[in-house]
Amino acid sequence: MSQLTPVDVFDYVVFGATGDLTMRKLLPALFYRFRDGQVPAESRIIGTARSKLSTEEYRGRARDALTSFVRPQDQDGGQIDAFLDLVHYASLNGAEADSTWSNLTDLLDHAPADRIRVYYLATAPNLYGAICENLHNHSLVTDASRVVLEKPIGVDLDTANAINDGVGRFFPENHIFRIDHYLGKETVQALIALRFANPVFERLWSSDAIDYVQITAAETVGVEGRAGYYDTSGALRDMIQNHLLQVLTLVAMEPPGSLDADLLRNEKLKVLHALKPIARENVAQVAVRGQYVRGDVNGQTAPGYLEDLGEGKTSSTETYVALKAEIQNWRWAGVPFYLRSGKRLRDKVSEVVIQFKSAPWSIFPAAPRANRLIIRIQPNEGVMLAVSTKDPAKPDSLTLREADIDISFGKAFATRYPDAYERLLLDAVRGDPVLFIRRDEVEAAWRFVMPVLEAWSADQAPLESYPAGSWGPKAAQDLLAASGHAWHEDQG
Amino acid sequence: MSQLTPVDVFDYVVFGATGDLTMRKLLPALFYRFRDGQVPAESRIIGTARSKLSTEEYRGRARDALTSFVRPQDQDGGQIDAFLDLVHYASLNGAEADSTWSNLTDLLDHAPADRIRVYYLATAPNLYGAICENLHNHSLVTDASRVVLEKPIGVDLDTANAINDGVGRFFPENHIFRIDHYLGKETVQALIALRFANPVFERLWSSDAIDYVQITAAETVGVEGRAGYYDTSGALRDMIQNHLLQVLTLVAMEPPGSLDADLLRNEKLKVLHALKPIARENVAQVAVRGQYVRGDVNGQTAPGYLEDLGEGKTSSTETYVALKAEIQNWRWAGVPFYLRSGKRLRDKVSEVVIQFKSAPWSIFPAAPRANRLIIRIQPNEGVMLAVSTKDPAKPDSLTLREADIDISFGKAFATRYPDAYERLLLDAVRGDPVLFIRRDEVEAAWRFVMPVLEAWSADQAPLESYPAGSWGPKAAQDLLAASGHAWHEDQG
Repeated sequence: MSQLTPVDVFDYVVFGATGDLTMRKLLPALFYRFRDGQVPAESRIIGTARSKLSTEEYRGRARDALTSFVRPQDQDGGQIDAFLDLVHYASLNGAEADSTWSNLTDLLDHAPADRIRVYYLATAPNLYGAICENLHNHSLVTDASRVVLEKPIGVDLDTANAINDGVGRFFPENHIFRIDHYLGKETVQALIALRFANPVFERLWSSDAIDYVQITAAETVGVEGRAGYYDTSGALRDMIQNHLLQVLTLVAMEPPGSLDADLLRNEKLKVLHALKPIARENVAQVAVRGQYVRGDVNGQTAPGYLEDLGEGKTSSTETYVALKAEIQNWRWAGVPFYLRSGKRLRDKVSEVVIQFKSAPWSIFPAAPRANRLIIRIQPNEGVMLAVSTKDPAKPDSLTLREADIDISFGKAFATRYPDAYERLLLDAVRGDPVLFIRRDEVEAAWRFVMPVLEAWSADQAPLESYPAGSWGPKAAQDLLAASGHAWHEDQG
Repeated sequence: MSQLTPVDVFDYVVFGATGDLTMRKLLPALFYRFRDGQVPAESRIIGTARSKLSTEEYRGRARDALTSFVRPQDQDGGQIDAFLDLVHYASLNGAEADSTWSNLTDLLDHAPADRIRVYYLATAPNLYGAICENLHNHSLVTDASRVVLEKPIGVDLDTANAINDGVGRFFPENHIFRIDHYLGKETVQALIALRFANPVFERLWSSDAIDYVQITAAETVGVEGRAGYYDTSGALRDMIQNHLLQVLTLVAMEPPGSLDADLLRNEKLKVLHALKPIARENVAQVAVRGQYVRGDVNGQTAPGYLEDLGEGKTSSTETYVALKAEIQNWRWAGVPFYLRSGKRLRDKVSEVVIQFKSAPWSIFPAAPRANRLIIRIQPNEGVMLAVSTKDPAKPDSLTLREADIDISFGKAFATRYPDAYERLLLDAVRGDPVLFIRRDEVEAAWRFVMPVLEAWSADQAPLESYPAGSWGPKAAQDLLAASGHAWHEDQG
């Protein structure tokens, strides 16, 4: 059973409360926190959206969501009823100044003025500024208010700045919680523990011992129902600019002085600032983009991206990116960080692979493989160390055998891993932004990827194709092979 | 199933063939190698001893030994019969020139002159020289002959030199196999693989990362039936001078250029030569000796050493030793190696504990414990790395949890670990002395412990007492506490 610290009484106001994210992620996450006793009884979850629903009607939808997205063994009827008692609904268009704001203000005015309020913006990002302005104009922004922003924060540096400016006019930076659910994942946090609680690893954590690093977020699904949105985004914006660069900062950062949110984020920011800028004319040498075409997935034919997009459509949106990043500082000079993400790939896996340097000399009958540390974010969370040991099945020689050793959770820790949102939603209540993205991080990340976006948009680099169910375009293998490196699955 | 390479046809001649070692260890070990198909069918095992037995009578004793000391599930009647067909007996006093040597020469003369011969001396060590001289005089030492010497090689430097001189007159050094069964143990060899096949560990393997090292060989048994012999020896001679110093050399040596026996033993020798000499007047500061007294073992009273020795006896023989060794070279300066061994201790365990330095700074709610690498030689062979990971049962904080991770055999490698003798007996047939002790190693090890033996024999240091079933005298804890260190079991 999880051991959790209750938080103070709060009102959680969700804009976009009838949307997919709220139903699939936010309500189930809040239910789990409630079920585990972490949510005080007077707290409220207030959904707002344009639909004209009564609280009872909204509770019905919420019940359907819990029935669908909470694990059956965790669905205790009494607890669901008690949780739904906390749920309220205010019909309201948050982006309009003269909408039915009294539906919300009436609810909030019932609570003490110093109660913690979290405004969770699960709407289109171009509405964030307007919603914040309206919250301000209706005197709903108190000292105890925070705002949570869902991704994407913009589609490029300029739009990101516009959104951040719009929100920043009404909320101070330390009340703005930009969510990146990767940071809420258990293994991503385990990486912090691994590095800074274990000198045996931190001592190895530099170009002295590390050859290169791979950060992968591979999906087997295509764009399916999200094709319309996805075509305006692409893999670089959807995954690399936010999630994978965030993981990179945690892998690469210097030890922070404490877990204070700003000290830690200062270190992450230093990594983003140390990324070697990519010149537009150099994009084809360090980045590969691809788009999936019809291919075989588990013996079934899967359609290509253009088919998913709809008949007669054309698109140069990338569904696959591989990128070679370099960090210009003492620790990492000379160690490539290869980032890649794609849809319709062979396996679903998000992981970091730390590839250590080979032994300089082998005394064994067959040379040992280089050690690897594999931080598996999903599925099958865990941290694996690939080591070579004496093969006990060959007792009369020093023959080696490689084994992947789980050095993290192990069977000793069998427990349900909370969804990333559970941790992050309550961190916002607590007012602890350590696992959220600061504005300067967003800007630095956009600044890094902008030349790639620009080069691609100007067609200065080829758009490769790859069959659905493969590991991506061959050009992505070549990207690593040029340095004598190989993607994890190609290492045999 | 083990994968083994058959060796050439051999004659294994055991002196002391009716003794305990032969019955408990040598015959069962050879049976296992036979059962696994590693022993060619024309090979012979020839027991010699003074007892006037026929081969048939000796085979009867051998059968009894196998029935007692081979695991019941491995006792295949047909295989035992086939194995016993290889067993012969020659009644002979090997130490007497005019004994019935023809019993042995008749047997050996039947074989081709170039057949591998192994003379295994499982007799009193003061007979080794005489036996070798007689083998020579009866023209039994061929180019394909090797001699295996059981410990102890002497009781001090002078007697060791006398034995080595006596044997060395008739066998070249590369045909002399001084056995130390610790070197045949699976985990001791796994240590070589761990260090030199895994740069991630070898990079940590110095005073940069390591605080101190503990090497323990603890027994729960007392001296019982061996009291007479043991009282002339003691724990320093019985365990430290040979087994524990050998383990120390493997932990501390520089990477050898290959697994060639002399290259590897050169590196071990360098470690023994680098041991900081202990001055006699300093023995009380770096060494603790103890003798067990009556105490509680698992709720039952166990007698003290003097009681085990017999009524009215007095003795200052140590049944416990703890020793602080220092290695004077670049890699290890400032890293104490604590060695200890004792009888009637709390647990039966032989292990190496590599205690890494603590993190210089903690950012966690509770400071992490220093990492430890535990190389368990027996029982429960394995290599464990103690790491701190994020506790997934506390999802809302970066709380740490320590886990001992098995990084060696794991469940993937479930197999019977061969007894150390199995590996070593066949290495002697192969003529590979890499896991045997070279003469210069024996001398260097004796040279290191002589001042301690001399100081104790002159009563220049106290003889502590400790209750049976304890972890030894308190002075042994104080030895480590003086440097801010603690024995493994005291680390909580």
